[in-house]
Amino acid sequence: MHNFTFYNTTRIEFGKGKETNIGEYVKSFGVGNVLVLYGSERIKKDGLFGRVTASLEGKDISFKALGGVVSNPVISLVRDAVKVVKKHNLQGIVAVGGGSVADSAKAIAAGAKYDGDVWDFFIGKAIVKDAIPVFTIMTLAATGSEMNPYGVVTNEETQQKYNLGGPALYPKVSAINPELMATVTPDYLAYSAVDIFAHCLDLYFTAKVFPEFTAALIENILTTVMRTTDVLMMNPDDYNARGEFAWASTMALNGNTFVGVEGNSFDTHMIEHAMGGLYNVPHGAGLAVVLPAWMKSIKNQMPQRFERFAEKMFGESDAEAGIEKLTKWFSAIGAPVTFAQAGLSADAVDPIAENAFGIAKLWKMDQLYPQQRIAEILKLAVK
Amino acid sequence: MHNFTFYNTTRIEFGKGKETNIGEYVKSFGVGNVLVLYGSERIKKDGLFGRVTASLEGKDISFKALGGVVSNPVISLVRDAVKVVKKHNLQGIVAVGGGSVADSAKAIAAGAKYDGDVWDFFIGKAIVKDAIPVFTIMTLAATGSEMNPYGVVTNEETQQKYNLGGPALYPKVSAINPELMATVTPDYLAYSAVDIFAHCLDLYFTAKVFPEFTAALIENILTTVMRTTDVLMMNPDDYNARGEFAWASTMALNGNTFVGVEGNSFDTHMIEHAMGGLYNVPHGAGLAVVLPAWMKSIKNQMPQRFERFAEKMFGESDAEAGIEKLTKWFSAIGAPVTFAQAGLSADAVDPIAENAFGIAKLWKMDQLYPQQRIAEILKLAVK
Repeated sequence: MHNFTFYNTTRIEFGKGKETNIGEYVKSFGVGNVLVLYGSERIKKDGLFGRVTASLEGKDISFKALGGVVSNPVISLVRDAVKVVKKHNLQGIVAVGGGSVADSAKAIAAGAKYDGDVWDFFIGKAIVKDAIPVFTIMTLAATGSEMNPYGVVTNEETQQKYNLGGPALYPKVSAINPELMATVTPDYLAYSAVDIFAHCLDLYFTAKVFPEFTAALIENILTTVMRTTDVLMMNPDDYNARGEFAWASTMALNGNTFVGVEGNSFDTHMIEHAMGGLYNVPHGAGLAVVLPAWMKSIKNQMPQRFERFAEKMFGESDAEAGIEKLTKWFSAIGAPVTFAQAGLSADAVDPIAENAFGIAKLWKMDQLYPQQRIAEILKLAVK
Repeated sequence: MHNFTFYNTTRIEFGKGKETNIGEYVKSFGVGNVLVLYGSERIKKDGLFGRVTASLEGKDISFKALGGVVSNPVISLVRDAVKVVKKHNLQGIVAVGGGSVADSAKAIAAGAKYDGDVWDFFIGKAIVKDAIPVFTIMTLAATGSEMNPYGVVTNEETQQKYNLGGPALYPKVSAINPELMATVTPDYLAYSAVDIFAHCLDLYFTAKVFPEFTAALIENILTTVMRTTDVLMMNPDDYNARGEFAWASTMALNGNTFVGVEGNSFDTHMIEHAMGGLYNVPHGAGLAVVLPAWMKSIKNQMPQRFERFAEKMFGESDAEAGIEKLTKWFSAIGAPVTFAQAGLSADAVDPIAENAFGIAKLWKMDQLYPQQRIAEILKLAVK
């Protein structure tokens, strides 16, 4: 069991109607005006935007609203938002949406306290030392961003999908109301399930030190995701399934899965970030393509770990069968598992490998992942 | 899935040597002088006290030391310590020990900010609104006190073993070094294992709303406790087993097991508190006597839950066999499972039932637990 620090400062408010208390949550941190950040204008039609702003107004919190955050969120919007925050001297951000909105909010929050270009945080040119408070109201469960200090944003000019992080970026309060997630489309539910799998399996198949308790926790998370996804594909309104799915996604990246672990890395995320940065493939869709290929490429390095996965998740006795069953399940829920299914041609292999190698260097993983190795993994997914 | 708030503000520093950073942890909260609270003088002989105070001095943090905290810690010591803290205007408390020391530290921390008698917090006469910061260095893993805002203390005069709590009582930083636990005696290891079981099973067998993910988390905690206890009884120096045992005990009462749960109560703790308050039975020993009896008394109310427990924990198909296997395991590790084994006579049933009924009233459980019912449960443990 490896030494670790566990310190997660986010307060989770989970359940029905919690978004209507957002004014109270914001006020409790002494924040008097905020940026309300969101994605599509749909939240204005369905009433969520109105409920959120009414709650803020009820506590005399003024706000500026900014929409338009997209899947694979972009740095240009973050830069624009930083200007708005600085111009109006806004003291906090309320992110209403999924991981893209929460991640953008973190970048904006860090940028608000920084004189240089916010992209500096992503390329290692600056470290996040301070940020204005972020609050989230989640409408999609996938990235775990509601209870962690990380964010991923794409620079459209340089086609780099990079990440930032720092303890100052833990959201202060995150409201998770599973009812708000009932309208998630089946494809995005599938991408979300795959994203949670990737958060867990990147660790599960790379950890050198891996306590049994932590391994079983991850298996519990993944079993929960499979069970509830299958329920939700049939019945999107199943509140309990929606709730357990949401909590599993939070638990997959809030520090619990790192307890006592050493030597893990985010291999499939590294490769997928390149795919998303270059071709704007939805994060979960890209991961569904990369994950089985990556698993095949490393299964002989950790045969017992793969056998355990096959047995615990699918009742199978050999490693290959575990990978096959997982791939089939990804297909069954509608996630792409080949380049073609993700709308990519074989010509994309080399550009993705080159871009991913840039991330590998930034993450100090380039010794382990020369560009050629990344290309070989990607080729396993070209069918 | 029931609405919930998850907000745990304790920072955990887990692993080898972490206690030697205590000066840094304390200083990071702007605290310049502390009470070092501990139990037996053994920590002076084995060097722990010296390492802790050297770390404090290294950061120019002055301290007063106070030892003598006992298992089933007493309010008289807490009152004395509050006087010391007030007299020297100490700004924080460093608790070095197990749950008794941590719990006493919390009571002292609340008392330091209160003009009345600190016992007021235990009998519902006052609410903990403020407290000086508590830091813990754990030498025994059982109560989970290192990462929760609760404490249990006994009033020797009134023979009441009662609890206090409040968000201000989360320890700021808790250092958990499994190496410091290698000298825990086999009987206290057994009592600790039982305590963790009781924290989990009180909830497991009373929850009306009980998400599958949370149930499986509890089963993971308990499986971990059984596995690691069996290892440690053979090899007390097994660091990984000691570490997983410690983390399981923390997870059993840090909020994670309450996620989405509704309708749970602390039934066996209520009864054991009476036993400990009257007869000074070690907490885990008393729980080992009460738990199987209580399980027998309620198993027909939740047959499926008991069948699940039997199956998941012991591979047994019926409820009765699950209870029997658990009882046998308690015996095998050296925990008493009858009044006689705990050194109690049958005459103790009525006084314990009467005392427990007092707690039932305080916890608003007296409708569910009339004194007669408590006595009937206790009689199941008289052999």
